[in-house]
Amino acid sequence: MKKELSAIEAKYEAQKIAFGPMFFQSVIALRDLGILEFINKHRKGVSIDTIVETLDVSEYGINLLIEAAAVIGVLEVENKVVKITKIGFFLLKDEMTRINVNFMNDVCYMGAKAMTDSIVKGKPEGLKVLGDWPTIYEGLSILPEPAKKSWFDFDHYYSDGAFPEALKIVFRNQPKLIFDVGGNTGKWSFACCAHDADVRIKILDLPVQLKVARQNATEKGLLDRIDFHAIDLLNTEQKIPQGPDVIWMSQFLDCFSKEEIVQILKNAYQAASETTTLYILEPFFDNQAYPAAEYSLVATSLYFTIMANGNSKMYSIDVMKELVKESGFEVVETYPLIGDSYHSILECRKRADV
Amino acid sequence: MKKELSAIEAKYEAQKIAFGPMFFQSVIALRDLGILEFINKHRKGVSIDTIVETLDVSEYGINLLIEAAAVIGVLEVENKVVKITKIGFFLLKDEMTRINVNFMNDVCYMGAKAMTDSIVKGKPEGLKVLGDWPTIYEGLSILPEPAKKSWFDFDHYYSDGAFPEALKIVFRNQPKLIFDVGGNTGKWSFACCAHDADVRIKILDLPVQLKVARQNATEKGLLDRIDFHAIDLLNTEQKIPQGPDVIWMSQFLDCFSKEEIVQILKNAYQAASETTTLYILEPFFDNQAYPAAEYSLVATSLYFTIMANGNSKMYSIDVMKELVKESGFEVVETYPLIGDSYHSILECRKRADV
Repeated sequence: MKKELSAIEAKYEAQKIAFGPMFFQSVIALRDLGILEFINKHRKGVSIDTIVETLDVSEYGINLLIEAAAVIGVLEVENKVVKITKIGFFLLKDEMTRINVNFMNDVCYMGAKAMTDSIVKGKPEGLKVLGDWPTIYEGLSILPEPAKKSWFDFDHYYSDGAFPEALKIVFRNQPKLIFDVGGNTGKWSFACCAHDADVRIKILDLPVQLKVARQNATEKGLLDRIDFHAIDLLNTEQKIPQGPDVIWMSQFLDCFSKEEIVQILKNAYQAASETTTLYILEPFFDNQAYPAAEYSLVATSLYFTIMANGNSKMYSIDVMKELVKESGFEVVETYPLIGDSYHSILECRKRADV
Repeated sequence: MKKELSAIEAKYEAQKIAFGPMFFQSVIALRDLGILEFINKHRKGVSIDTIVETLDVSEYGINLLIEAAAVIGVLEVENKVVKITKIGFFLLKDEMTRINVNFMNDVCYMGAKAMTDSIVKGKPEGLKVLGDWPTIYEGLSILPEPAKKSWFDFDHYYSDGAFPEALKIVFRNQPKLIFDVGGNTGKWSFACCAHDADVRIKILDLPVQLKVARQNATEKGLLDRIDFHAIDLLNTEQKIPQGPDVIWMSQFLDCFSKEEIVQILKNAYQAASETTTLYILEPFFDNQAYPAAEYSLVATSLYFTIMANGNSKMYSIDVMKELVKESGFEVVETYPLIGDSYHSILECRKRADV
């Protein structure tokens, strides 16, 4: 929005925001009733009459949804012949867009109504529509469908793309012992074991998560190389053990507030030696190649507020660097947008001046 | 959306649709927590630190909502100084935009989730979140707040602007007897009585509506000039009486499906003489001066689907003219966008060739 808008343009943009939820739901209906797919199959266009004759949807519904889709640029209508636009095609076929749409509709839509409340209370008040948990993490394995599938699709999409490139960066100095802090189901640890035959891993996480990670490690026959350390990083009494070559935090710190991040990084600081490298992998919203990605990440911040925990968010790269510094580390190298992903890696060492 | 978008632009536009509801709710929070108003008062900009110090909202919430607002062009942030944009100003101060936002949030947001269902069933399935009525019309007087206020603000805003100019058009030929079909609370009839000292009016509507209209007419001392005719226009047995100089239908036909409109207009046809004029006042979505207005009217169609009655919509001017013709009338004059309103008037007479 760099150029100056006229009043007429600004008023139009304001209405797009005002009726955003209505048109969003009209796109869901257009897709779920098979209308968008049918139109997409007719690349040269298809008449509204043919759509009405072919699909088992009322003439009223078809006309209504096509008019709505035309207004937001998802379809083009000329002489009662309808074509899909590029925007419509992305909504129908692009993986990122599909995943975002389903995440919005199945996980976040109803809960988003509680945004003001969530900010006032500092709690994810929208989560109540899915279940009675203090944060979404307690409920992940028992989320109702389709929320569960849409949540995991979203999580998966925004994390796995970074791993191949990240492995190259982390193993540049052949670490022997890696602490996977917030290791969750163990995906990163298993990738490390596959990448390097000698590395040993310690997964640090809450007991409930470690149960899942241990189960997965058992199935993969990796219990001789991976061990587990139960820890609640919000409890300052509980210390990360000494001795790792690498401390790894992958999409972990965005689950916490700024104050909590400093506390966690200070805990890492007391565990680190002069030769320990701390790697922070995050999708920083201000460090993206495409506006679509920045848009998605800021929306993800809002998800944290209403559904996840009420107090975390995606961070800008500058804010994270400040928090790193405040904790006694310094960023010695930044690897922006590694591989085919939205993530950057901050490589950190203990500051010499602390 | 006339110009051809690049893939990157189209993907961005698709994400705007995908996260429309999330950003909508972030704007609601930004407004309801007083942040938008505070920023608006500082036209030259205000630092985020000052906002955090002044307002009783968490630093987390303020940063989050400002980041979200910047992404959608509601605020501009430069060197941690925030300014409101034109879009933000419209959201905060423009009457149409405010009314649309509140209508979306208070009346339609939760119900919109049921759009696919509403189309499949041909019923306003979203209405259930407000109350247990077959259509919203049965529930209007007992809607829960804030839905009730937002509904009436919306209805009021989109109808009253047309009346002054409409009176001039209708009274050009000094009608003695006007039938106000679907007269609702009587607002148009009272305006007619104020405009012309001699005109007599018959309000035709459902008994429950006539009760309100009669009460209002009594209070205004107009019972000697206005009478009432109870009629259910969806019942083909019930006929509009003969004899009016003018049959007036103001924002009435958009409450019905195309088939029902033809049925109602045929009923008007049997009541009309060669000298009767039928006036249809409607906001046609394809006949608007500004894209913001077209956008709002198409969104209103979607409201009819999910919340109002499940089968009506705003019409294009061509479709309405076809329905007029099919019913035995012809449009002898079109008055586009009369006065300071979104409405056009179709002046119709019985066709000579029927």
